Amino acid sequence: MLIKHGVNSSVAAAVFRRQQFLVKSLGVGGQNCQYTMQGALSEDGTHYEADAVAILRAITPKLDPTRHKGQAGKVAVIGGCREYTGAPYFAAISALKIGADLSHVFCTKDAAPVIKSYSPELIVHPILEESYSVRDEEKKLVFQKVVAEVDKWMERFDCLVIGPGLGRDPFLLDCVSAIIKQARQTNVPIVIDGDGLFLVTNSLDLIRDYPLAVLSPNVNEYKRLVQKILCCEVDDLDAPAQLMSLSKGIGSITILRKGKSDLISDGEIVKSVSIYGSPRRCGGQGDILAGSVAVFLSWARQRILVDKGDLNISSVNPTVLGCIAASALLRKAASLAFEKNKRSTLTGDIIECLGRSLEDICPAC
Amino acid sequence: MLIKHGVNSSVAAAVFRRQQFLVKSLGVGGQNCQYTMQGALSEDGTHYEADAVAILRAITPKLDPTRHKGQAGKVAVIGGCREYTGAPYFAAISALKIGADLSHVFCTKDAAPVIKSYSPELIVHPILEESYSVRDEEKKLVFQKVVAEVDKWMERFDCLVIGPGLGRDPFLLDCVSAIIKQARQTNVPIVIDGDGLFLVTNSLDLIRDYPLAVLSPNVNEYKRLVQKILCCEVDDLDAPAQLMSLSKGIGSITILRKGKSDLISDGEIVKSVSIYGSPRRCGGQGDILAGSVAVFLSWARQRILVDKGDLNISSVNPTVLGCIAASALLRKAASLAFEKNKRSTLTGDIIECLGRSLEDICPAC
Repeated sequence: MLIKHGVNSSVAAAVFRRQQFLVKSLGVGGQNCQYTMQGALSEDGTHYEADAVAILRAITPKLDPTRHKGQAGKVAVIGGCREYTGAPYFAAISALKIGADLSHVFCTKDAAPVIKSYSPELIVHPILEESYSVRDEEKKLVFQKVVAEVDKWMERFDCLVIGPGLGRDPFLLDCVSAIIKQARQTNVPIVIDGDGLFLVTNSLDLIRDYPLAVLSPNVNEYKRLVQKILCCEVDDLDAPAQLMSLSKGIGSITILRKGKSDLISDGEIVKSVSIYGSPRRCGGQGDILAGSVAVFLSWARQRILVDKGDLNISSVNPTVLGCIAASALLRKAASLAFEKNKRSTLTGDIIECLGRSLEDICPAC
Repeated sequence: MLIKHGVNSSVAAAVFRRQQFLVKSLGVGGQNCQYTMQGALSEDGTHYEADAVAILRAITPKLDPTRHKGQAGKVAVIGGCREYTGAPYFAAISALKIGADLSHVFCTKDAAPVIKSYSPELIVHPILEESYSVRDEEKKLVFQKVVAEVDKWMERFDCLVIGPGLGRDPFLLDCVSAIIKQARQTNVPIVIDGDGLFLVTNSLDLIRDYPLAVLSPNVNEYKRLVQKILCCEVDDLDAPAQLMSLSKGIGSITILRKGKSDLISDGEIVKSVSIYGSPRRCGGQGDILAGSVAVFLSWARQRILVDKGDLNISSVNPTVLGCIAASALLRKAASLAFEKNKRSTLTGDIIECLGRSLEDICPAC
């Protein structure tokens, strides 16, 4: 997390200033401004609040007419089954509304026509299968076909979101396990939410030591992770330390613990996002968050890669940056939507506020 | 491209003035105002910019209460499969939003209910088949049935758009090859985009020497065409000359090369459209363009046919006029949509701005 640098031109100096800005926003490396395993927390716990607005501004790419389709992000959601169709839609459309160029959904055959009908903007692949539709003797062949279908697209994606509306069918989860392995082999980042967390909590090796994985558990999903990995109960009195231990316990992957304040750790630092959002807890907000993390994580990686081209520096962890930016944007959008719709605020209303929220923070031009 | 004329009445004089206006807008025939294989380009390359606004005004038909349904254009999109449903919808609904009277979609049985659900304004024919749904022994019969189904409609269409969301299934592409042959026999113009370009790049004879064909490749599709036809790589330093060679190499069919500026050539002239659009590159904008070219091309043909009724003149190439008008309108609509929606601009938002954009240029009344 320390920045090494060698500045020998005005361009490099500008890039260095951007890096310093990111580091400062994260509170990395300074005294008394980050929470570490060894560091002490202030009583009110506010000193590890990330400067989320500054991070959003730093990683959101400028819109440039010379860029072509795909360069602002191509994401894919793995989710959507006979039972659930809203969750993958929310995740995938949120990615587009933030500014990604292309958003795919890989779901079951039953879910596809419904998800397609929500919006012509998504590319929906009806390729997953649930046990009820596959005879035992066909399973091996169908498994290979499903995995091959996703694999042929894998290299094109900047990030996968695994889990929204995935369901818990054993055969389907076997296929998704293989898809996670493919993503790791191809070095594609993965954001795991919803039923994807059920899967990886029971098969931790799927994501252990993969630095490009993000888990985004809610209260109950977090509880199961703590029990499984740390073999204890959730300790709300020392939440940051426990989150950091949890992240370290699974190979320093990034965890975004959703709550009144969102807490984010990659095993090295803990940051929080406490911007006021909305008191409405309508289902689906976690799906917006997962889709948003995918976009901001991709942008942060792109930003850091560009900077690396000019300077030999270690980068700030893009998964942490992506989580902070997504958490802040969702909260701002939820606040705007609630202001307008009050108790009747639904997830779709919040999605409609993503664009204005981002525009308020970093105007497109 | 030169206009021959003989004016002997005030009506004919008015028609002649219109023709001169079109010719002037295109910069055809004048010194230093067209790019030819022999001509020199100015350093800034701007002298072959088309007067797109003037062309839009010249070819858009007046709305006349005496006209009946269909006279403002009947187009059909061949596309839409199990995987893709948004693209054919975007192309077909754009045609209606610009002012066509009827817009059809011929797609697979899986895609039809979804495309129908996007809008009741479209006429959607579930007649195409993909390999997975046809047994080998049935293929010949199904092929004949598919081709006959489209054929019985063919004469009613002013233009076909072939390719948006077509997919690459071999059996389906065989059927589409036969549909292209039918269109040529019936003298129906065809705009080829997306997977349609994949098909014709591999089977150039399908469109070679057909003056009513338009190809609208993006960066990658253009690269493949250049490699296949000119056996070299894309030369951005002399883009207009290469585009003209490409067009000539395939029998002087019209090519609309999409990019920061759109470049259009029919092997005789090259024109560009550089009106500022939007920096958003969300997927689907190419589908709007394809549907729009179909309408404007039809209107340009209609306009020239009317004029021809009175005067014995050679016409300006309607395919080039259609491409210029469509490119300009899409850019204007994208600009309006971006002004309102910024980074969250989606293809649907741009479609909603087509009407106002056209109205700003040529008011309906």
